[in-house]
Amino acid sequence: MRGAVLYAPGDVRVEERDAPKIIEPTDAIIRMSATCVCGSDLWSYRGINPVTEPAPIGHEYCGIVEEVGRAVTSIKPGQFVIGSFFASDNTCPNCQAGYQSSCQHKEFVGGAQAGRLRVPLADGTLVATPEVPSDDLIPSLLTLSDVMGTGWFAADAAHVKPGRTVAVVGDGAVGLLGVLSARQMGAERIIAMSRHQSRQKLAREFGATDIVTERGDEGVARIKDLTRGIGADAVLECVGTQESMMQAIRSTRPGGSVGYVGVPHGVELNGEELFYAHVHLHGGPAPVRRFLPDLIDRVWDGKINPGKVFDLTLPLDQVAEGYRAMDQRRAIKTLLRP
Amino acid sequence: MRGAVLYAPGDVRVEERDAPKIIEPTDAIIRMSATCVCGSDLWSYRGINPVTEPAPIGHEYCGIVEEVGRAVTSIKPGQFVIGSFFASDNTCPNCQAGYQSSCQHKEFVGGAQAGRLRVPLADGTLVATPEVPSDDLIPSLLTLSDVMGTGWFAADAAHVKPGRTVAVVGDGAVGLLGVLSARQMGAERIIAMSRHQSRQKLAREFGATDIVTERGDEGVARIKDLTRGIGADAVLECVGTQESMMQAIRSTRPGGSVGYVGVPHGVELNGEELFYAHVHLHGGPAPVRRFLPDLIDRVWDGKINPGKVFDLTLPLDQVAEGYRAMDQRRAIKTLLRP
Repeated sequence: MRGAVLYAPGDVRVEERDAPKIIEPTDAIIRMSATCVCGSDLWSYRGINPVTEPAPIGHEYCGIVEEVGRAVTSIKPGQFVIGSFFASDNTCPNCQAGYQSSCQHKEFVGGAQAGRLRVPLADGTLVATPEVPSDDLIPSLLTLSDVMGTGWFAADAAHVKPGRTVAVVGDGAVGLLGVLSARQMGAERIIAMSRHQSRQKLAREFGATDIVTERGDEGVARIKDLTRGIGADAVLECVGTQESMMQAIRSTRPGGSVGYVGVPHGVELNGEELFYAHVHLHGGPAPVRRFLPDLIDRVWDGKINPGKVFDLTLPLDQVAEGYRAMDQRRAIKTLLRP
Repeated sequence: MRGAVLYAPGDVRVEERDAPKIIEPTDAIIRMSATCVCGSDLWSYRGINPVTEPAPIGHEYCGIVEEVGRAVTSIKPGQFVIGSFFASDNTCPNCQAGYQSSCQHKEFVGGAQAGRLRVPLADGTLVATPEVPSDDLIPSLLTLSDVMGTGWFAADAAHVKPGRTVAVVGDGAVGLLGVLSARQMGAERIIAMSRHQSRQKLAREFGATDIVTERGDEGVARIKDLTRGIGADAVLECVGTQESMMQAIRSTRPGGSVGYVGVPHGVELNGEELFYAHVHLHGGPAPVRRFLPDLIDRVWDGKINPGKVFDLTLPLDQVAEGYRAMDQRRAIKTLLRP
C-alpha cells in the first residue's frame, strides 16, 4: 500500500509500504477513507522534534473496517469508524474517568497517512457511525479523530459555559475549532486572536464575535480592554509555545480557566506568577474518545461542520505539497485522499 | 502600643510602635484579641525572602472594633471581627467571582502581631461574629483569618467532594487544616504526608485515614500504591517548594486536581510534564473572605475546632520564642496574646 514517510525535516515522501496486519487479537485493520496533516506533524517536519530515522507519519484517520482480531466484539468489518490518535482500552480507571488519552494501556496510533491502518484496542478506541456516511460528511467526521476533539477538549477544560467570555490563542485548525466548540457550548462572546484574514473569516463563521490581531503583552492588553480590565472567563491555548501559554494565562481573569492543548515545546511556567494569576489550568492530550459519540451525533445531524478547516484537499501521493502548504501557512489544514 | 518588628533574619523583636489611626474613611481600627505566627512569616524570618529594613510583621488577626472611618457602614465599634490578610472591597468583579485576594483594590494587611491594627476597606474585608465570642472560641476564630481559610481553599481548589481520595502534601498548620477541610467536604480517604509524630496525631484527629512518611518520588510511589496505581483524586499542596509541587502533581491521577496554596519559592513547572500529567491545577493566595461566613458558622456551631493547631501560646512580648519554636519545628503554630 502507499503511505507517507518522514525522512528528515522538510522531506516527507509517499512510498510503497507493507500493508498492516492483525498482530494482537484486539486489533482492527481499517481502509482509510481520508486522512490529514496535523499541526503537530509540523513539529517534526520543521525539525523541532528530532527526526532520527525515516518513519511513517500521520495520526488522524477514519474509514471502513476491513478485518478485526478474534477478541474484538463491538466493531465489525464494513462499519465506518473513527478513532483517536491514542488507542485506549476504555475500561481502565483513567478511561472510566474520561481520560482515555492517559489509558493505562494506551498506544499511539501512528502512520495514518496511508491507505490502511492497524488500530490497536479496537473495541475501546473506535466508534462506528450510524451507517456508512455520504462523501460530503467525511471531512467533518475525519476532524473528530483529533483536531475537532482537541478544540472541544480545550473548551471543556477551560469550563466554557453559556454566557461566558472566551478568548482563543492560536488560529490554526485546533484554535478555529476551539471557537466552534465554545459557540456550541453557549459562550456569549468569543474573541479569536488571529492576524490572518482567511482564518479570521473562518473564525467568524464558526462563531467568533471579536478578532484581536495583537500578540504577546499587547494581545493581553487588548483582551483586558474588552473585558472590563479583568480578562476573559475562559482562554483556550492552542499553540504550545512559551509566548502563547503566557498570553493565555495573562488573558484570563482571576478565577477563570485556561484550557491548553498545544503540545508544549520549551514551556516553563513560573510558580509564583501562576500562583498570583489565580487561574485554573487544565489540558493535555485530548481524550478524544470521550467526545466521539457526542461529536459524531453533532456532525451527523448537521449541527456542526468542522470539515471547513480543510482548505486544501490532495491525493495522498501529493503529501509533500500538503505539508509545504501548511508549513508556509498557505493552507489551514490539508486533507489527503488515499 | 506593643508590636513585633522583624529586623533581620532570625531577629524579631517586640517594641513600642505608634498606635494605628484611621487614614482612609473606609478603614477600621481593631484591638487584637489574638494574633499568631504564619508559616509564610518564616520565609522572611529564615531570610529566604530578603529583609531589607526593619518592618512590622504578622497578618492574621481577630478582635474588637474600636473605631471606624466615616464611610464604613456595615462594621460597628464593639463588634468582634475577623478579616483576611488581603483587604478587599468585596464588590469588584474579581471579588464578585469569589477571588477577593485578587480584588482590584486589594491591600496587604501587615503588622498584625501587635496590640492594634488598621484594616483598610473594612466593609469588604471584615466579617463580624454573631456576638462577642467566649475566650475558648478565639483560637479557632483566629485561624479563619488565614490558615484555616487557606487549607479550605486548597481543598476547594482541588475539588474535594464526597467519596474522593485526597492526599495532603505538607504537615504544617495549613496542611493539617487541609485534612480537616477535606473531611468536612466528605472525602472518603485522606492521606496525610508527614514524618512527625505529633503532626500525624493531629492529622488523624482532623480526619486523616492514612499516613505516608515517604517524600518526593518515594512518596509518590506510596500514594500510587494506595490508589490502584493511578494517584489520588485530589491533592493539596501546602508547602511551596519545587519538591512539594512535583510531589503533588505526580501523586494526582489523570483528570484529578491539585489545589496549591504554598507560596511558591523557586518553583518552575515544565510544560511538557504538566501536559501529560493531565491534572487540574488551581491555587494561589486563598480568597479567605469568600469562606469566612461559612467557616465562622462551623466554628460557632462547634462543628470544627481548627484552633487545635496552636500548640504554643505566648504573650506577644515573647514573639521571638514563638518564631524560634516554629522555625525549629518544636511548635506547629504559635498563638500570641497581645
